[in-house]
Amino acid sequence: MRNIFSMPKGILQHINDPKDIRSLEIVDLLQLAQELREFIIDIVATKEGHLGASLGVVELTIAVHYVFNTPKDKLIWDVGHQAYGHKILTGRREIFNSNRQLGGISGFPKRTESPYDDFGTGHSSTSISAILGMALASQIKGSKNLQHIAVIGDASIASGMAFEGLNHAGDTNANILIVLNDNAIGIDPSVGALKKYLTNVKKGTAKDENIFECLNFNYSGPMDGHDLVALIKELKRLKDIEGPKLLHIITTKGKGLKKAEENQVVYHAPGKFNKVTGDLWPKTSELQPPKYQDVFGHTLVELAKKNEKIVGITPAMPTGSSLKYMMEQLPDRAFDVGIAEQHAVTMAGGMAAEGLVPFCNIYSTFLQRAYDQIIHDVALQNLPVIFCLDRAGIVGQDGATHHGIYDMAYLRCIPNLIIFAPLNEIELRDIMFTAQLGLDHPIAIRYPRGRGVTLDWKQKFNKIPIGISQELKKGTKIAVLSIGHIGNMVTDLLKSMHNTDQIGHYNMRFVKPLDTDMLQKVFSTYEYIITIEDGCKMGGFGSAILEYANEMHSFVPIRVFGIEDVFIEQGTIEELHKIAKIDISTLKNYINNLLNTD
Amino acid sequence: MRNIFSMPKGILQHINDPKDIRSLEIVDLLQLAQELREFIIDIVATKEGHLGASLGVVELTIAVHYVFNTPKDKLIWDVGHQAYGHKILTGRREIFNSNRQLGGISGFPKRTESPYDDFGTGHSSTSISAILGMALASQIKGSKNLQHIAVIGDASIASGMAFEGLNHAGDTNANILIVLNDNAIGIDPSVGALKKYLTNVKKGTAKDENIFECLNFNYSGPMDGHDLVALIKELKRLKDIEGPKLLHIITTKGKGLKKAEENQVVYHAPGKFNKVTGDLWPKTSELQPPKYQDVFGHTLVELAKKNEKIVGITPAMPTGSSLKYMMEQLPDRAFDVGIAEQHAVTMAGGMAAEGLVPFCNIYSTFLQRAYDQIIHDVALQNLPVIFCLDRAGIVGQDGATHHGIYDMAYLRCIPNLIIFAPLNEIELRDIMFTAQLGLDHPIAIRYPRGRGVTLDWKQKFNKIPIGISQELKKGTKIAVLSIGHIGNMVTDLLKSMHNTDQIGHYNMRFVKPLDTDMLQKVFSTYEYIITIEDGCKMGGFGSAILEYANEMHSFVPIRVFGIEDVFIEQGTIEELHKIAKIDISTLKNYINNLLNTD
Repeated sequence: MRNIFSMPKGILQHINDPKDIRSLEIVDLLQLAQELREFIIDIVATKEGHLGASLGVVELTIAVHYVFNTPKDKLIWDVGHQAYGHKILTGRREIFNSNRQLGGISGFPKRTESPYDDFGTGHSSTSISAILGMALASQIKGSKNLQHIAVIGDASIASGMAFEGLNHAGDTNANILIVLNDNAIGIDPSVGALKKYLTNVKKGTAKDENIFECLNFNYSGPMDGHDLVALIKELKRLKDIEGPKLLHIITTKGKGLKKAEENQVVYHAPGKFNKVTGDLWPKTSELQPPKYQDVFGHTLVELAKKNEKIVGITPAMPTGSSLKYMMEQLPDRAFDVGIAEQHAVTMAGGMAAEGLVPFCNIYSTFLQRAYDQIIHDVALQNLPVIFCLDRAGIVGQDGATHHGIYDMAYLRCIPNLIIFAPLNEIELRDIMFTAQLGLDHPIAIRYPRGRGVTLDWKQKFNKIPIGISQELKKGTKIAVLSIGHIGNMVTDLLKSMHNTDQIGHYNMRFVKPLDTDMLQKVFSTYEYIITIEDGCKMGGFGSAILEYANEMHSFVPIRVFGIEDVFIEQGTIEELHKIAKIDISTLKNYINNLLNTD
Repeated sequence: MRNIFSMPKGILQHINDPKDIRSLEIVDLLQLAQELREFIIDIVATKEGHLGASLGVVELTIAVHYVFNTPKDKLIWDVGHQAYGHKILTGRREIFNSNRQLGGISGFPKRTESPYDDFGTGHSSTSISAILGMALASQIKGSKNLQHIAVIGDASIASGMAFEGLNHAGDTNANILIVLNDNAIGIDPSVGALKKYLTNVKKGTAKDENIFECLNFNYSGPMDGHDLVALIKELKRLKDIEGPKLLHIITTKGKGLKKAEENQVVYHAPGKFNKVTGDLWPKTSELQPPKYQDVFGHTLVELAKKNEKIVGITPAMPTGSSLKYMMEQLPDRAFDVGIAEQHAVTMAGGMAAEGLVPFCNIYSTFLQRAYDQIIHDVALQNLPVIFCLDRAGIVGQDGATHHGIYDMAYLRCIPNLIIFAPLNEIELRDIMFTAQLGLDHPIAIRYPRGRGVTLDWKQKFNKIPIGISQELKKGTKIAVLSIGHIGNMVTDLLKSMHNTDQIGHYNMRFVKPLDTDMLQKVFSTYEYIITIEDGCKMGGFGSAILEYANEMHSFVPIRVFGIEDVFIEQGTIEELHKIAKIDISTLKNYINNLLNTD
């Protein structure tokens, strides 16, 4: 077992800018790599965050800043959670312990945070397009000798968008260097034909011509991405070569922390751990409600064992979505298609066209990548694909790039599509049960990151009638219409108040079709209506209620609680709900004011 | 000059189903190819539609239906405008003259139209994902010997989504055949590194290993796609090979009509022409307002000549967007990136980050392909990219796959983004002028297919203040709030009415930010408000007005005119506006009823 305290310290603390690196001797650079690795481990062990990816590129990070003249030379880190070392070396060492926290630095590169963060990244596979734009810009501006570097992993380069960037770049003489950081894993192990091909390249069993050479790139590699000296030498060589270049380096995700190397999926973002042994701190033994993702994962297996038409699809998120349970138990019917949301959706459409029942699980924020496919390949053809949108709503520390807050707005305008948000685990199970029985339409089921509210969640299935809401509590004066999990906050609030006779609470369940019978009753019964959603206000659930109220010529005052028209940064979900004013005390104050109104 | 009347006729009229083809002798198949080509030319010459693509695959269409057991074997035509021959041979010969017309057959494959249309296509590059989904479905269902064929062009296969499909398919043993129909052109000539590579393959100058073999496909070709006999032989051979296969055929777009072969861009969808000579019928000599696309194209050149930071970007639509003018005159600053909307948007973001002023022109319906990139790579980073969304609103004969009616809804929920719709050519020019002066935010400018309203359109530029609307006509009782070009219909209506003192008309211009000062004035002045938009009602412009009225506690009755929550099929724009009830007589009746209300 390596002892991280046995090595001499002292170089990293003097690095306040990449300039400081460029004056170091090789021996010092090697030590810097050790220190940087330890620093990342130290902080992430207690503050949490993404671990494995940044450990894998420690040498690359130093080499790139050593060889290239950042920030004049442009540098983009794809996905961005591999950029911790970059942040630490570019003036953010002392504030790095605020990583991913409210008011702290972002867990991803961010233009407003540092002149060294040339482009914000968070979703994968954008770096080639962005760096090509910058390289073409420098040609147009006549800035001749600038270098443009993008670092992209093997999972990310297999996504369609990256191919589009390569295809264009290879047809230009733009001065760009793509560093393919090949560790054979994204969050879960990489998949696909390109991954197999890259494996052959590494083994030397691929034939002569290289796939990147086919695309007109100057290819070099594969080489050991942890050999700092060789890396520096090769980057220096490439610096003098004009046009599009691709350097293929082999790295180990989690490099330097034995447990992280051995269990790369867990140590992608391990939570708190012992920085010496790498052991995860024991989870609380307290009985807790399950994570929604696990309710999805286990329920899908349960249903799929009975309904052999069910298939499961995830674009590169078997662990995060918990589709892994079905992949383990019914491997022939569960598909990880890699970072390929577009393909995932249209393939699901093809399967539905042939009579299968596809559950296509995509994080809300990533479904944005397949928007056209939902419209054109699923909804227009009215194919009954079942979309499960995990991480819907505010997601917490991943911040602005990852909140899933637009889905209700961008999905609502699509004809034929049913949109459902479960109040709790039971409703998630029941709507999954209902959907696989056969709907006449596609359905999107959105549920949040994190845990539900029900310990005894694995109950007998009940069919949910489409478009029917639930009156949780009758009232007389104020009706609260909630959609999805945030309704539990309303329930908690009502429990905490003394006299709630005047307050009604409706779990609306369906953003579309709306339960218009219930709404008409509500419009005619109450004096005030409140809507609340964990999503953007513009065009969202509350907006749907406004549209219907307007159609019905209802003039009951409606107050919409939702996320205003600004981007929300990182923090805990609770902190961010407060900032977005969709928290319990904001709601309580508003209701109390109304109760005091006559 | 070939005389299309000189050849014996008589086989095509007996083909009512692909079964009828399978009993023919080779000599008859060759004649069928001639007749099919003539039939397509005959109909498209008078009824208009897509010509070149279908002429190029006449032999392939016959060969595929001859060799494979459609509709049991599955067949998907990418993009779908190459499927005219397929439609004619699969029972739709006699109704083919209703192609693209209201109530007629669709210009694209459509599942509800025929059991031979296995998957609806219209946007490119979806076929590989869909056919893979079907092939995997047949494995799961245990239907062993089925074949699954997708025909995709060289422009479409270069799009990221197609790569995602190839990457997954190559990692399966699914029984699929991808026919790469390589004619070196999409609507405009193909671009990109892959296109260059394919050219090398055709010339025999590529090295041994093939890019598709790298992705684990069984590759065969390149071969002449017009050699029907060889094609049949090769397809029969491939039928017996299991797993993913790719057949590379070389075809000539427009094959069989000399003019169409010589001028492939024009004859992609040429309008009416002389079926014997191929000559286009002379355009009307009547002076007409310009097409919006040309106002964009010429204005961009005008601005770019003065502002050297301006760049232009189109994903494969130089002709359709009229970016071709800038590509001709300022080739270093105008980019056709191929069918790569995602890349186009993020590259524009990279360019804006480096201080350029990118005009990124994408049809409204295709911008759906780059939704995540607008949010994540442009708006979140507040990069001042100027999106020009051509073909916004109902587009006419291309039908449901191509209407650009969701953009206001799906863009409105994105923070930082300005959304503008010009009333006419002058406003399009002025907002382009305004945007390139430098905005603090990205902007989306949506304008419709077709012609504007102003003969004298090339006027001096005026800056448009952001978020400021225009009072076109004062009134007292009814305010009509219109957004974009459809406001001209309101103007026409008011001109046609006798006493319009009570009716006000407001050209709102900005969907976001709304002109709240003007709205407050309107809310407090009028008894009734009407909003009208050429876009979907759910979440759209009218919905924005409802949201603001609700926030202001305004209780003026608002009637929203827009497209209901259903898909709209093909027809002329006028016909479809009537069906969608956003036409002049619907509006007139509604206003007259209101005028008679007291």
